[in-house]
Amino acid sequence: MHVLIMAGGYGKRFWPRSRDKNPKQFLSIFGQKSLLEDTVSRIAPLAKEENIFIVTNSAYKRKTIDLLGNIPKENIISEPIGRDTAACIGLGAVFMKKHDRNDVQVVLPADHLIENVSAFREVIKKAARVAQEKNCLVTIGIKPTYPNTGYGYIQYSTDKNESDNIYKVKTFAEKPNLETAQRFLESGDFLWNSGIFIWKIDTILNQIETHLPELYDGLMEIEKNIDKKNVGAVIKKVYSRIRNISIDYGIMEKAKDVYVIKSDFGWSDIGSWAEVHRLGEKDSRQNVIQGNAILRESTGNLVIGKKKLITGIGLNDMIIIDTDDILLVCPKSECQNVKELVDYIKRKGMKEFL
Amino acid sequence: MHVLIMAGGYGKRFWPRSRDKNPKQFLSIFGQKSLLEDTVSRIAPLAKEENIFIVTNSAYKRKTIDLLGNIPKENIISEPIGRDTAACIGLGAVFMKKHDRNDVQVVLPADHLIENVSAFREVIKKAARVAQEKNCLVTIGIKPTYPNTGYGYIQYSTDKNESDNIYKVKTFAEKPNLETAQRFLESGDFLWNSGIFIWKIDTILNQIETHLPELYDGLMEIEKNIDKKNVGAVIKKVYSRIRNISIDYGIMEKAKDVYVIKSDFGWSDIGSWAEVHRLGEKDSRQNVIQGNAILRESTGNLVIGKKKLITGIGLNDMIIIDTDDILLVCPKSECQNVKELVDYIKRKGMKEFL
Repeated sequence: MHVLIMAGGYGKRFWPRSRDKNPKQFLSIFGQKSLLEDTVSRIAPLAKEENIFIVTNSAYKRKTIDLLGNIPKENIISEPIGRDTAACIGLGAVFMKKHDRNDVQVVLPADHLIENVSAFREVIKKAARVAQEKNCLVTIGIKPTYPNTGYGYIQYSTDKNESDNIYKVKTFAEKPNLETAQRFLESGDFLWNSGIFIWKIDTILNQIETHLPELYDGLMEIEKNIDKKNVGAVIKKVYSRIRNISIDYGIMEKAKDVYVIKSDFGWSDIGSWAEVHRLGEKDSRQNVIQGNAILRESTGNLVIGKKKLITGIGLNDMIIIDTDDILLVCPKSECQNVKELVDYIKRKGMKEFL
Repeated sequence: MHVLIMAGGYGKRFWPRSRDKNPKQFLSIFGQKSLLEDTVSRIAPLAKEENIFIVTNSAYKRKTIDLLGNIPKENIISEPIGRDTAACIGLGAVFMKKHDRNDVQVVLPADHLIENVSAFREVIKKAARVAQEKNCLVTIGIKPTYPNTGYGYIQYSTDKNESDNIYKVKTFAEKPNLETAQRFLESGDFLWNSGIFIWKIDTILNQIETHLPELYDGLMEIEKNIDKKNVGAVIKKVYSRIRNISIDYGIMEKAKDVYVIKSDFGWSDIGSWAEVHRLGEKDSRQNVIQGNAILRESTGNLVIGKKKLITGIGLNDMIIIDTDDILLVCPKSECQNVKELVDYIKRKGMKEFL
């Protein structure tokens, strides 16, 4: 199979660890390795190295090549600007088409966490089989364990008695509020949208032609120049005129033959610092501490530092992230607003802190 | 007049700015100069430089001499260990006795803040007059403006109609709880105990002889050796055997002729980070910020840093103190417990952070 790893983001919600020069996919949140390296190792047993592609921002191309020594350099595809997932996936498909247009394309975000790797691989293999047999779009849905408001949801159809946890998709739902998320959880037919997709290279390009014809035209223009020296300039030109649109909104919600595989392999997209706390190893008072910290009479906090001694008294459900040049302190409940803080810093022109 | 500045403390509640090698009196909390320098400048117009004495810990002698270039070196008296204010004041009195036993000794803590300096000087002059005329102990009481639970209180007698804000002291009260502090405030006859004392050198030595005879014996032994080379060793020997006792507890509460001058010169002993917030210049959301900080949706916080960008979201009534090697985060309501945090660090043997 062919694998496309989407590694172009910035990860604003992981600021100040995530920075312009070192975005989320290059961070190691829990382990020794970066999230991107973990993503590659996880899928490596299922695909040949020459069939693993990474799409990233041109600013991160060099860093990505250096990090992933085993992946052929020409498989690191760079986007001049981010145009959301539809363009990223289409671009990857065009490059893969050269290899084998009938092969499966597995699309993986570069910054997710997966606990049960072998269960993950089994699900991917199953999805690839379905995608080949049915010429359909397949996505992975995760059995939700709590009403997360930071994830999108997928409702599956219970009309037909599908086997082996493979269901037809009924609807895609965007990030819900807490009340809605609770309703989703109780309903029993909603899954977390993992952002992992599986389909044949051919199939997705056909779908783009149908639902996003402008993007398709651009991709064909790129294809014509794919072996030429000026392919970078062509991509730049195409990207400058196409719209920002996600694969969910542009294709998945409109396509007819969409299947979801209900899965349970300890998936998390660690979308915020609160998720790092939720997933981290806790002390007896539910504190997650990385670095050198002393917390007194404090419960449920996330503290990430380096050498500096971080001390707290009477802190509850707080987030403290200390880096060399920036300190962030906020209640866990405010961690979705880290993004807005980053936008504010951008508006203020304080580039050195981005 | 003679002036004794007590500058031997550590200021645990100001940790992590206050450190073993740089205690509170060497910090500049609001201004450019250190609290100790401010204390000296404030009293300087009332006393000759050769009559200003500083008692400090031997560890801080060098630093004190360097800081206070105008004060004669021999006036910087060092204690081998802290033995509370009674010993410190007695030791100062013994050195001053050589100059003139009938002169007044003004005792000033080195780490207080005074807004109205000229009003302060007028009160000190008045107190010196009273101390000379009545051969009594005089202390300065501050008209309380809110129920501070970090200060001691003085109750004055309303029996006699004293003039010019000079009253007989009825009782000294230790740091009260909030309820008691509110009662004190409502009663109208309680003042904040400023820790500023005025008396004749003779008078205080007589009082020590009466109420603290062991300390007096030690002081006389020091006096006998005061011009000898081994005076430091004698002080060390004496200090090793005397008890820790404050002037309030050892003398003031026991003595008969104690007067208090009711004053109002914007005094504060800035006893905690919460006080720094209370006294500091506030932005439109009641935040006091020193250094480089961005606070979003945050009210009533104290943030002290240096170069590092300190960011906060949704913080209310928090204290964030960032130094080169230590960060402290706690709610304002917990700032009295900074002391216990420092004691904990001491118990753990983490000397580098003291």
